[in-house]
Amino acid sequence: MLLPVEGGDRSARETVDFSRIVAFTDGVFAIAITLLVLSLEVPSDLPGSELRDFLADSWGQLFAYFLSFAVIGRFWIAHHAYFAMLHSFDARLLVLNLAYLSLVVLVPFPTEILGEYGDRTDAVLLYALVLGTTSLLGWVMLRYTLRRGHVRPDALEQAARAAAGSVLPAIVFYASIPVSLLSPGVAQLVWLGMLADAFRGRR
Amino acid sequence: MLLPVEGGDRSARETVDFSRIVAFTDGVFAIAITLLVLSLEVPSDLPGSELRDFLADSWGQLFAYFLSFAVIGRFWIAHHAYFAMLHSFDARLLVLNLAYLSLVVLVPFPTEILGEYGDRTDAVLLYALVLGTTSLLGWVMLRYTLRRGHVRPDALEQAARAAAGSVLPAIVFYASIPVSLLSPGVAQLVWLGMLADAFRGRR
Amino acid sequence: MLLPVEGGDRSARETVDFSRIVAFTDGVFAIAITLLVLSLEVPSDLPGSELRDFLADSWGQLFAYFLSFAVIGRFWIAHHAYFAMLHSFDARLLVLNLAYLSLVVLVPFPTEILGEYGDRTDAVLLYALVLGTTSLLGWVMLRYTLRRGHVRPDALEQAARAAAGSVLPAIVFYASIPVSLLSPGVAQLVWLGMLADAFRGRR
Amino acid sequence: MLLPVEGGDRSARETVDFSRIVAFTDGVFAIAITLLVLSLEVPSDLPGSELRDFLADSWGQLFAYFLSFAVIGRFWIAHHAYFAMLHSFDARLLVLNLAYLSLVVLVPFPTEILGEYGDRTDAVLLYALVLGTTSLLGWVMLRYTLRRGHVRPDALEQAARAAAGSVLPAIVFYASIPVSLLSPGVAQLVWLGMLADAFRGRR
Repeated sequence: MLLPVEGGDRSARETVDFSRIVAFTDGVFAIAITLLVLSLEVPSDLPGSELRDFLADSWGQLFAYFLSFAVIGRFWIAHHAYFAMLHSFDARLLVLNLAYLSLVVLVPFPTEILGEYGDRTDAVLLYALVLGTTSLLGWVMLRYTLRRGHVRPDALEQAARAAAGSVLPAIVFYASIPVSLLSPGVAQLVWLGMLADAFRGRR
Repeated sequence: MLLPVEGGDRSARETVDFSRIVAFTDGVFAIAITLLVLSLEVPSDLPGSELRDFLADSWGQLFAYFLSFAVIGRFWIAHHAYFAMLHSFDARLLVLNLAYLSLVVLVPFPTEILGEYGDRTDAVLLYALVLGTTSLLGWVMLRYTLRRGHVRPDALEQAARAAAGSVLPAIVFYASIPVSLLSPGVAQLVWLGMLADAFRGRR
Repeated sequence: MLLPVEGGDRSARETVDFSRIVAFTDGVFAIAITLLVLSLEVPSDLPGSELRDFLADSWGQLFAYFLSFAVIGRFWIAHHAYFAMLHSFDARLLVLNLAYLSLVVLVPFPTEILGEYGDRTDAVLLYALVLGTTSLLGWVMLRYTLRRGHVRPDALEQAARAAAGSVLPAIVFYASIPVSLLSPGVAQLVWLGMLADAFRGRR
Repeated sequence: MLLPVEGGDRSARETVDFSRIVAFTDGVFAIAITLLVLSLEVPSDLPGSELRDFLADSWGQLFAYFLSFAVIGRFWIAHHAYFAMLHSFDARLLVLNLAYLSLVVLVPFPTEILGEYGDRTDAVLLYALVLGTTSLLGWVMLRYTLRRGHVRPDALEQAARAAAGSVLPAIVFYASIPVSLLSPGVAQLVWLGMLADAFRGRR
């Protein structure tokens, strides 16, 4: 599927092969979400009792794994709905999309740190910072699209609602930074509450 | 391909781009199955005789690799047949599918533990627990689809048969948990028997 | 694209969604070839002179990387040509294809061992064994397809030629096993000769 | 989509399934760009103060991550525009494309070394060498396509411009090699300048 660039000129030079961009984006999301499992490391040569201790201590890592899986999954659903609203595209949006993906791909890094050091302020703060910035960039991208007239006319209302909805996780993640200074555990509960709400499908 | 949500309303808001969901799901399956190879770790700087010992001791890791490759491959074939039966979709099914994928993606973790510690009850029990729960969630997803009327009328009989078939691995994996307390080896033989049966294509 | 199963019956039950199988297969090839880079490990905290030594010693690992990239690339080209010849499919072929992929995905493991221990018979022997068996299974799959009548009539001659061509790497890899007992270096030169010939496009 | 080989003969033997090549290429790009995150390693069992030190010292690794993400992203955009200009294909181009991809896939290796040892000439030199050679091969591929008449007539002017544009990063990366002998930091600033220019969309 070819989408016109800057709302109209359909010459060969001025179209982008939108389906390749979608496939690339989906591929990056699928790989980033799958690489999360690599944050779960398995030590070698543990004696019997220590294997049990290791597994018992894995809950922090599993929590971080499922948390990030849910967050990236939610981002993907939002991105998917977002791209379905477009009827044109431009070169700057391509760059914005790449910048957004560079943060999505980064998520396994703060996830591994959170899984390893989930009870410490530094780990929670880094996670909130990366995920908040990712959400913010998603919102910037959507705002840009609306301003440049890339949204299909019949989807304008939905896009405005989506923009409002996508600013929420940015606020929650950033707001959890001061919370994490007081209590890393409470900050993580705030994230869970937001996710539970997001997946109830009200968007 | 767009599928209607909740059996009928085709407005832009109420459709999901089913082909993107399929592509994302297939991508996640393909990556998860390929990451299994990363559970085979290669030590550095072994002297000649120890390299041979290392390779001779790799059979446990290779067994775990091929076992999980076959299990994920089987899950993928079942999922593939399952999605081909749908004629509509809803937001909750999208979330169920993500939850299912979060367990499929997790499989390399118990696989690596099984490869490293395959003779211990803890490793076998963890593997049975994760794979049994994955199978169970697959069954839940199929039951949900049937109850909500998302299955094509001409595929109803096939879907009922698939649901019956997909509950079987859940039962076998869970039933192997008490077996693993007595003998980790016998539990693994039970899994192999189930897989051999599944691949004989009777489904 | 739906292909009939066992040459004709087009009922919903008896077709496979061939394009999903192709996409899954291509995805697995793309991931397996890309994971090869993970066999190149970077040590931390080397002092200046040792970084230079490490890089100077990386040639063995880079050789193994490019060798396996070329081999998997060649397998992918062959598989690609092979799937283009089919006009039907069956459940056993799906299982054969998965078994074939389980060996392709395994390639990064012998590659890493070859990169680390390329001057030792054990490493070369393991590589020859895995790659020879992968080639052999590719040939088995093609023979099976021909015997079951899944090849398009106009591609029969080409398929017979491809089958003859695909047995060659299996023979060369297996034949290099006794050679590796005498000289690991000569065995690797034999592989390079075969690859150079394969990429000259005579297929 | 099938493209004729060598400009015309459309027999089954002489076409390549171009869409599978595109999908494979995009998949490899998407995986290579995502594997960059694995260059960010997380140490275990750091005491509180050392976790903070580790994060404070991560800027070099994050710089290398974002740099390579931008470079691979830029390569992908260029490749994407390039493939859209073709109207035929040949077997040698398939091999050239694979050789090009083998360098793209290698990028996480010099990236990890740059992230770990960014202040040393050896690391900067290796990075410049790999990325310069990748750019050069991209240019060779484009020149080959033009010479063989695989470019659509209406895209000839654009292709000539793209060829001129794609030789630039090769020159900049190679020219930064002598610079890195004097100052690794200045060499990296040169790369940033080139990237900023490339993303301003003048292509």
